[in-house]
Amino acid sequence: MTKPKLRIGLIGSGFMGKAHAFAYSIAARVFDLPFELELHTIADISDEAAAKAASALGFARATSDWRSLVVDPAIDVVNITTPNALHKEMALAAIAGGKHVYCEKPLAPLATDSREMAEAAEAASVKTQVGFNYLCNPMLQLARDMIAAGELGELRGYRGVHAEDYMADSAGPFTFRHDPAGGGALADIGSHALATAEFLVGPAAGPITGVMGDCVTMIKERPDGKGGRRRVEVDDVGRAFLRFANGASGSIEGNWIATGRKMQHDFEVYGTRGALAFSQERFNELHFFSTDDRRGRQGFRRIEASPDHRPYGLFCVAPGHQLGFNDLKAIEAAGYLDAIAGRQPEPFNFRAGLRIQTLVETIHASSRAGTWKNVP
Amino acid sequence: MTKPKLRIGLIGSGFMGKAHAFAYSIAARVFDLPFELELHTIADISDEAAAKAASALGFARATSDWRSLVVDPAIDVVNITTPNALHKEMALAAIAGGKHVYCEKPLAPLATDSREMAEAAEAASVKTQVGFNYLCNPMLQLARDMIAAGELGELRGYRGVHAEDYMADSAGPFTFRHDPAGGGALADIGSHALATAEFLVGPAAGPITGVMGDCVTMIKERPDGKGGRRRVEVDDVGRAFLRFANGASGSIEGNWIATGRKMQHDFEVYGTRGALAFSQERFNELHFFSTDDRRGRQGFRRIEASPDHRPYGLFCVAPGHQLGFNDLKAIEAAGYLDAIAGRQPEPFNFRAGLRIQTLVETIHASSRAGTWKNVP
Amino acid sequence: MTKPKLRIGLIGSGFMGKAHAFAYSIAARVFDLPFELELHTIADISDEAAAKAASALGFARATSDWRSLVVDPAIDVVNITTPNALHKEMALAAIAGGKHVYCEKPLAPLATDSREMAEAAEAASVKTQVGFNYLCNPMLQLARDMIAAGELGELRGYRGVHAEDYMADSAGPFTFRHDPAGGGALADIGSHALATAEFLVGPAAGPITGVMGDCVTMIKERPDGKGGRRRVEVDDVGRAFLRFANGASGSIEGNWIATGRKMQHDFEVYGTRGALAFSQERFNELHFFSTDDRRGRQGFRRIEASPDHRPYGLFCVAPGHQLGFNDLKAIEAAGYLDAIAGRQPEPFNFRAGLRIQTLVETIHASSRAGTWKNVP
Amino acid sequence: MTKPKLRIGLIGSGFMGKAHAFAYSIAARVFDLPFELELHTIADISDEAAAKAASALGFARATSDWRSLVVDPAIDVVNITTPNALHKEMALAAIAGGKHVYCEKPLAPLATDSREMAEAAEAASVKTQVGFNYLCNPMLQLARDMIAAGELGELRGYRGVHAEDYMADSAGPFTFRHDPAGGGALADIGSHALATAEFLVGPAAGPITGVMGDCVTMIKERPDGKGGRRRVEVDDVGRAFLRFANGASGSIEGNWIATGRKMQHDFEVYGTRGALAFSQERFNELHFFSTDDRRGRQGFRRIEASPDHRPYGLFCVAPGHQLGFNDLKAIEAAGYLDAIAGRQPEPFNFRAGLRIQTLVETIHASSRAGTWKNVP
Repeated sequence: MTKPKLRIGLIGSGFMGKAHAFAYSIAARVFDLPFELELHTIADISDEAAAKAASALGFARATSDWRSLVVDPAIDVVNITTPNALHKEMALAAIAGGKHVYCEKPLAPLATDSREMAEAAEAASVKTQVGFNYLCNPMLQLARDMIAAGELGELRGYRGVHAEDYMADSAGPFTFRHDPAGGGALADIGSHALATAEFLVGPAAGPITGVMGDCVTMIKERPDGKGGRRRVEVDDVGRAFLRFANGASGSIEGNWIATGRKMQHDFEVYGTRGALAFSQERFNELHFFSTDDRRGRQGFRRIEASPDHRPYGLFCVAPGHQLGFNDLKAIEAAGYLDAIAGRQPEPFNFRAGLRIQTLVETIHASSRAGTWKNVP
Repeated sequence: MTKPKLRIGLIGSGFMGKAHAFAYSIAARVFDLPFELELHTIADISDEAAAKAASALGFARATSDWRSLVVDPAIDVVNITTPNALHKEMALAAIAGGKHVYCEKPLAPLATDSREMAEAAEAASVKTQVGFNYLCNPMLQLARDMIAAGELGELRGYRGVHAEDYMADSAGPFTFRHDPAGGGALADIGSHALATAEFLVGPAAGPITGVMGDCVTMIKERPDGKGGRRRVEVDDVGRAFLRFANGASGSIEGNWIATGRKMQHDFEVYGTRGALAFSQERFNELHFFSTDDRRGRQGFRRIEASPDHRPYGLFCVAPGHQLGFNDLKAIEAAGYLDAIAGRQPEPFNFRAGLRIQTLVETIHASSRAGTWKNVP
Repeated sequence: MTKPKLRIGLIGSGFMGKAHAFAYSIAARVFDLPFELELHTIADISDEAAAKAASALGFARATSDWRSLVVDPAIDVVNITTPNALHKEMALAAIAGGKHVYCEKPLAPLATDSREMAEAAEAASVKTQVGFNYLCNPMLQLARDMIAAGELGELRGYRGVHAEDYMADSAGPFTFRHDPAGGGALADIGSHALATAEFLVGPAAGPITGVMGDCVTMIKERPDGKGGRRRVEVDDVGRAFLRFANGASGSIEGNWIATGRKMQHDFEVYGTRGALAFSQERFNELHFFSTDDRRGRQGFRRIEASPDHRPYGLFCVAPGHQLGFNDLKAIEAAGYLDAIAGRQPEPFNFRAGLRIQTLVETIHASSRAGTWKNVP
Repeated sequence: MTKPKLRIGLIGSGFMGKAHAFAYSIAARVFDLPFELELHTIADISDEAAAKAASALGFARATSDWRSLVVDPAIDVVNITTPNALHKEMALAAIAGGKHVYCEKPLAPLATDSREMAEAAEAASVKTQVGFNYLCNPMLQLARDMIAAGELGELRGYRGVHAEDYMADSAGPFTFRHDPAGGGALADIGSHALATAEFLVGPAAGPITGVMGDCVTMIKERPDGKGGRRRVEVDDVGRAFLRFANGASGSIEGNWIATGRKMQHDFEVYGTRGALAFSQERFNELHFFSTDDRRGRQGFRRIEASPDHRPYGLFCVAPGHQLGFNDLKAIEAAGYLDAIAGRQPEPFNFRAGLRIQTLVETIHASSRAGTWKNVP
């Protein structure tokens, strides 16, 4: 039985463009996908760059005109991995072209734009995906399942952080990530901490209902790349207190000037009967404390990723061999393809991406106001 | 040359009473103390309890009347290790009796009481000490020295936590720690997180100037010990955003319902040139990241306590052998005795204890108001 | 410029067959390979199994006749991932057919067979590869480079282990891995420990020149799969003392009954100026101690995999994102393809595979004799 | 009820002399000892040194004549903390004087001497103790109890190491520890690894019955302290394969040139149903894997020392506060005092110390012979 073809268009070939291309390749080998994938066209900033990327990443065609890509009738899915400010225009055009759209996070710099995108996608009945790839880790799915199954008892507290140091050097130039409209550490990586928080505890504790934000700019200006300096207004550190629907409370921090940290996407969840602790620095492990263990033998238990934790076993039949970052992205792609085929709901669609933008903006608003805000 | 005698009176023989007695014994062996110590009198709730404690802890005399102890002309130093609500009365009486006073933390449930105690001590020119024992760890002193010496560069961010689970069981009874006047997780152990924050970064980043608090009661009532239930109003989790004088920002959390955590007194400090990470769960280690390390060889370095880190070498001449909790308490006692002898300033006197209470109360007030508060 | 085609034949579609298929797919995306790869034919035990595997793993053709595959003029490289006892016959046939051969480890159960294979390949001037995939970790390459560059000073000691628990259950059946000719824990996974030892320290300390073995059978019989029991003669634990050419000494252990261990492929290397420690359980980290660090700041430093450590950056441009097991296999495949293209020497050819078998057999012989043996 | 007095004499006031003095002080506070201790006399190399030590360590009298100390009728227990070569003469003299003797390890450089000492003590019916202090860790007692109770199932494998780096610098001078008669890393610290091995698994797997040794001298000569160089013959690294009475096998390593290691006294024990892993670098933790945990939730569990693990609770009533090295020594002293009082058997008497010397010498003999040796 032959599978239907699904033709992929990709806009952008940087860090995340490559990650999408890798993800499809890996997914096609690892999963029993519902489609035969065709890497159809890649668009980049120039013909030359696009041609080079097509060759490197395995796309059959290349273009410097993303507008032609998003209306190409031969293309089924459009992947958007360009700077954030371009997401909206590209996504709306692709949706208008009837394409499914897989957009990198953040969905758009502003929640209003994100909403427009989500509504357009829903009106057009296309399937969408936003790239919150850390959620695709089998150990996070395990954590979520354990929490939902009550293995921690009733949830009481949450602590999350996403800290890196890629903006720690004040000599680094002003980039699109510093754009006052939607930039900053909270939006860029604090968003991961927020996504993880609701992903994990949402089913058990309900959504985040209130936030108190603390967004701080530590590096006040940066080289503008033209010999001058440019004022920076976005946050280098964005913190929030959280309130969940069930009354549990917590906090998150997004921080891109945390010298020495490369991938501190960590969380701790505390319930009445147990706790979980996790660090992306060792993301093939989940640490689990249970009050069910007998007295004198209790302790945080280091669970290593194994075929017991789906879909690890599709990558490797033996425990302890470990997944890498590109594998997480492949899981994300596979889930999205299943959603396109109607096999499952969209794992993290534009509406979910809007939700994160809403949380980010509510935290920003709270920080500016210096008071708690309800999350709309 | 014989040393002058210093006669110790101790009120209380529970967890902290024992710790004080152990501390003096260890300090007398390990340090070249300025005094010959005499464990003179111990006071406890009854004659019988006091006699038993005296025998166990090596005090020559016992009494059930703490009031007689604090005015006994034979006693030089009064140690107070009773429930928090009693600290003030006992300390003021001891100060009035001309005694030096070594009081367990928190100094008093309320800052106003703490201030009265600090001012009385200063007026009487007696030497005081409050028991923030975790500060006495050589690795914390190392961290403070490194920060002060600029090894991290300019300070930018701080994350602190003190989480345990001794109140996680909602079937546990209402105790003095739940007293609406001064109880709660923030006061009880969040205070350690605050003390550590200012201890470490104060010399470099200045004091905490502003706070935004988030204090949450998760267990709303507890058994009252008489067959009924009693409403709990104090916080089970107390969080705060922090602002330091130099503009650096941070956060702390005090949490006594963190299931599975026994001694998560942790911090991370980030500067422009480096970072430190520490956990009391492994308190003979300090983790240090330096951008001075060459490219491709950078990473958090696990520094193990050794004779290079004073006063570790007095306990053991070989590295890696490790100090225990009672050793930290002995370092605290030794520092205090040096202060009494005029060899050094008081390491953490009542004024410093008042400072912590002020921080706690400002966080409480901020939490109630839902807005930032300047720290007086 | 189009690349020459390289057509791949794969025999076997189990754990390692999949890993080879994944490896080529990932390598084709991640690396600038010298060839355009074509997954040409897969051979498996039956037509049905082969067809299914071809579909799953992306091969164009399927066959149940591996003999036809190895002589198919359309095929350039033959990958052998079948049980160990079949490696020799298949490899010799493929070499006779003029194919390059990429064979899973161990090369063959016996060193004599391995030698025959290595000599045949060399005589035929085909390029060969044996799958010691853990060596392909950028952190191991880093370790080797550091050692070779003298960052540890003169090498003195080595400790290696490869322990798992996949044979810990005595109710598990007798398999080809228990075959008296070439089976056992030392051959199966102790071989990894040996390969890593020589890979890391060989350039600096020279090869292993002498061994003293200790091979122990703990589970004396196993179910034979036909309702009976079968005697087991191979080692469940195989240890060895090692002597290197420069006089340094060390030890390794292979252990497949280490309950709880999933991937304890660990090593520690000690030199006069520093040390390295590594665990495959956290294989994106390397721990480095240097006496060059200043006094009071020394400690094992956790270096996280980053673009500074080639070829990590081809997988991900940002540090800390981590590689997975299949990525290691892709690095292995890419290195082999470069060798086929003449860009570099074979990374781990049949001659190197023979070396490992020789070490394994010398250890076995030493264990049987109860005395040290020189390694031929 | 007053306790009988026990008067302590101590010979030596270096590292271990201090540790003994500290141990008695701590023990007297922490434990309900059967005696009232009196630190009676300390002997050191000169009158001046002895007087200074007496003052520092709390002994009432000082002498430069250890011979007078060991026959002083006022003294009940003699503690020997001098260089190894002096142990025998001092111990025999003390035993002849009717004293109980608490001797630092190793009992004597040679097993024949150790035997003489053990037999003399037994003939004189005095109580003896040898200072294998790491065994006194509550987490080791826990490990032993768990193994004895069958929580790991049937024992199969053991891996132990004791590695430090205090002899790693080849510029360090020749000391008594390099004495050809009884010196070397195996005797000095490998002995700890041996003691721990039998302590833990002895009750379940029986004693070590056979050994194969590998003792290596890496630093062939050292400064002799007089401007010349002196040849070193003792081992810098001493390894052994082990066979236990029940058929389980294992290995240990003693290594005093392991650059970067300060206290790597580690072990792993594997049984049919579980495993334990421990490092003295974090000695308030024990890691436990149990196959009884449910599938998908298995993992090594970090058990933190707590009042559930005797006698931790006597030091601190709260979990997670941690013991230090001097506390371990206090537990050792307390156990010995209980043995003197007849409350329990001697925890680690001269006969046990002889056992370790016998193991060390058998390993040395095996290493020299290059063959396995049965342990007498």
